[in-house]
Amino acid sequence: MERKLVSETPGLIGQTIRLAGWVHNRRDHGKLIFIDLRDRSGILQMVVIPDKEEAYNVAKELRSQFVVEIEGLVKARPGGQAKESALGGVEIEVSGIRIISDVKEELPFDVSKKELELNPSTLFDNRNLALRNKKVNDIFKVYAQVLKSYGEVMRENGFMEIKSPKILSAATEGGANFFKIKYFDREAYLAQSPQFYKQAGVGAFERVFEIGSVFRAEPHFTTRHVNEYIGIDAEMGFIENFSDIMDQLEMVMKRIIADVKENCQEELKEYEGGEFLVPDKFPRIRLEEALEILKNEYGKEYLGIDIDPEGERLICDWAKEKHGSDFVFLTHYPVSIRPFYAMPSPDGKSTESFDLIFRGVEIGTGGQRINRYDDMVKSIQKHGLKPEDFKHYLDIFKIGMPLHGGWGLGSERIAQKILGLKSVKEAILFPRDVKRLTP
Amino acid sequence: MERKLVSETPGLIGQTIRLAGWVHNRRDHGKLIFIDLRDRSGILQMVVIPDKEEAYNVAKELRSQFVVEIEGLVKARPGGQAKESALGGVEIEVSGIRIISDVKEELPFDVSKKELELNPSTLFDNRNLALRNKKVNDIFKVYAQVLKSYGEVMRENGFMEIKSPKILSAATEGGANFFKIKYFDREAYLAQSPQFYKQAGVGAFERVFEIGSVFRAEPHFTTRHVNEYIGIDAEMGFIENFSDIMDQLEMVMKRIIADVKENCQEELKEYEGGEFLVPDKFPRIRLEEALEILKNEYGKEYLGIDIDPEGERLICDWAKEKHGSDFVFLTHYPVSIRPFYAMPSPDGKSTESFDLIFRGVEIGTGGQRINRYDDMVKSIQKHGLKPEDFKHYLDIFKIGMPLHGGWGLGSERIAQKILGLKSVKEAILFPRDVKRLTP
Repeated sequence: MERKLVSETPGLIGQTIRLAGWVHNRRDHGKLIFIDLRDRSGILQMVVIPDKEEAYNVAKELRSQFVVEIEGLVKARPGGQAKESALGGVEIEVSGIRIISDVKEELPFDVSKKELELNPSTLFDNRNLALRNKKVNDIFKVYAQVLKSYGEVMRENGFMEIKSPKILSAATEGGANFFKIKYFDREAYLAQSPQFYKQAGVGAFERVFEIGSVFRAEPHFTTRHVNEYIGIDAEMGFIENFSDIMDQLEMVMKRIIADVKENCQEELKEYEGGEFLVPDKFPRIRLEEALEILKNEYGKEYLGIDIDPEGERLICDWAKEKHGSDFVFLTHYPVSIRPFYAMPSPDGKSTESFDLIFRGVEIGTGGQRINRYDDMVKSIQKHGLKPEDFKHYLDIFKIGMPLHGGWGLGSERIAQKILGLKSVKEAILFPRDVKRLTP
Repeated sequence: MERKLVSETPGLIGQTIRLAGWVHNRRDHGKLIFIDLRDRSGILQMVVIPDKEEAYNVAKELRSQFVVEIEGLVKARPGGQAKESALGGVEIEVSGIRIISDVKEELPFDVSKKELELNPSTLFDNRNLALRNKKVNDIFKVYAQVLKSYGEVMRENGFMEIKSPKILSAATEGGANFFKIKYFDREAYLAQSPQFYKQAGVGAFERVFEIGSVFRAEPHFTTRHVNEYIGIDAEMGFIENFSDIMDQLEMVMKRIIADVKENCQEELKEYEGGEFLVPDKFPRIRLEEALEILKNEYGKEYLGIDIDPEGERLICDWAKEKHGSDFVFLTHYPVSIRPFYAMPSPDGKSTESFDLIFRGVEIGTGGQRINRYDDMVKSIQKHGLKPEDFKHYLDIFKIGMPLHGGWGLGSERIAQKILGLKSVKEAILFPRDVKRLTP
């Protein structure tokens, strides 16, 4: 008998079918045994009655996370017991159960609970089990939607997907944040962004995007940082100015949010991340203006010229209140705190660059890049670096590069803030931080 | 004036428009100057006449790969000169040219040639320039189509996209092929496959796929090997047997080929990879049978129980001739040459595993995995390994795993063999091998 999915059962009332999945939980109610069966499509209630002796005896042995095959009759469920979902209207009267795989140890927590409420180390030490909790599991449906939407909207806008190397011969952009690797008889480094390669991509393809691993050897211990994540990047040639990049990114974020709203309704309900405030144009505030706002409206004064995580949260509060927006672009970061390739603004002090803040967290950074060889060489020197260390990168600018720019986003931070998760790690299947390399 | 793309010009005859792109080449014909302009959509001929003095003087300065903006009138081209493509019917009568970026050095070769015919080191040393050659450039359109089709067909079949970590705490599956990295104050390793994590994904999501970086520290110097590539992986739970996995993979490959045939017609024409032979069912030959065929039909005898690259080529010749197929599955590799997690066949000697060979090259490997904890522990021991080294992996099997299996494919090898490229490196933007880490 062909296996059916839980989600198909509402259309199969009156039929005897075969299901397969995990025992989500088992409840003994007097003589009846109730099993919630989980497969990739949902969770459904099975009822085992003592008359079906063989199945009943197997059912008594079942524990959480046993893998089973179940044969039974699909029945409409008495109206009074109907739950919220469509599956609440259906149950299976079990006629046979076969155990495919059992469980070897006492489970540390009950995955069938609505909220696991575990501390982070328990959550991640027992990641394989925790991922079987519906609410935890659903994070990754939203995450997969983010990846899917990104690819779709980029392709529709004429961007070509590329894959750039993650092993580099030199630790460019400053060596401190690079992981070093032993590459046969020499040293190499793990890419901390596809920056140089996506710019090369502009020279060949004009518009490129990449979804790929990013490695950062930053010894941070925050809810915002991990040492390995999936960057979603883009770079586009033949822009007029850096507003074009923000326009494009605005379109991308609007599409991601719209798709998640449409396709992840159940997941959004569980997480109560709240209504999305996505105006047609996201507010674009110069960094210096933002610092003024923080001073005048929130009494928060910065000595330097940069903003900190608390400032990002506050400026998002402000954008929400004043512009009805969950997103805000901070623009024109000073030359001194941006990489050497950032295009300086006409004032010579700031850059044609931006950060995109979403619900209080920076989810990405971008801007226009210097595109002329001579300007790039000067900027490298001005930043105290040596042009000879950037030979291969500089080669790109020797052979004709248009005005261009792009962005890099943290894919997991997007999913995190869509769902209102406390830490970005919750949006990563198997997160890596300074202390954690397992499971 | 809004920038138009070259591909839009056949619909704009009689209009004055703005284009932007790279000078693909410049030809002086008597008084007229002809410029082929390349943008992301195609290559188009511009004509500059001496009467437009300002433009003409700029045109005289132009060299290959200058980035320019051009204003001009779209004109139908005299029929006799029409080339193969739609763009052959149109040209631009130039009224203005602006140089955006020039070229700083003598170019080592002419990218406007149909065939570059470079030796590999010149091709890769000058990769940024070579990628501007149409034929080289087009490889990556096909590659992007492979990635797109893979994601689409997997999602349609209920597979969820995951991203697994590439930094591992232990060099599992045998340490020799792992790159070692310095991870803060300890050692770590780069993932040589997402194997363990995609199996964990089965426990949580039943059907998962991943497109991600794979790192192999193999000191090979062949046209088949690189040290970093993009693996396209999948793993599926609740299979009946390992034929289900081959059925699924067959569907994937048929979809990729069909999409490439439909969307990359121009690229296929350039490369003359030949007709695709894609039967509904790909031949599935037991490895021992394949060795018999090689012996009887090609006089090639193997001492061992494995096949070599030449054998793979010959068995593909055979599959093409006997089954009209560019694809062939070799199945039932012996336990001794498969990883410990491969599910043994009932005979105890072979495994429920396969390699997929496409046009003479192995593009992927897969099979059913052991799914019961006790069996996995025994198999680890049988392979001379220590269960305690696989603690986190074994944890997956303690909490209930269905019959499952999957595959890992090399995405670049697929593109390579679709186009008939000599080396897999040609299908990688910036390939990494033992000697090459740049550009």
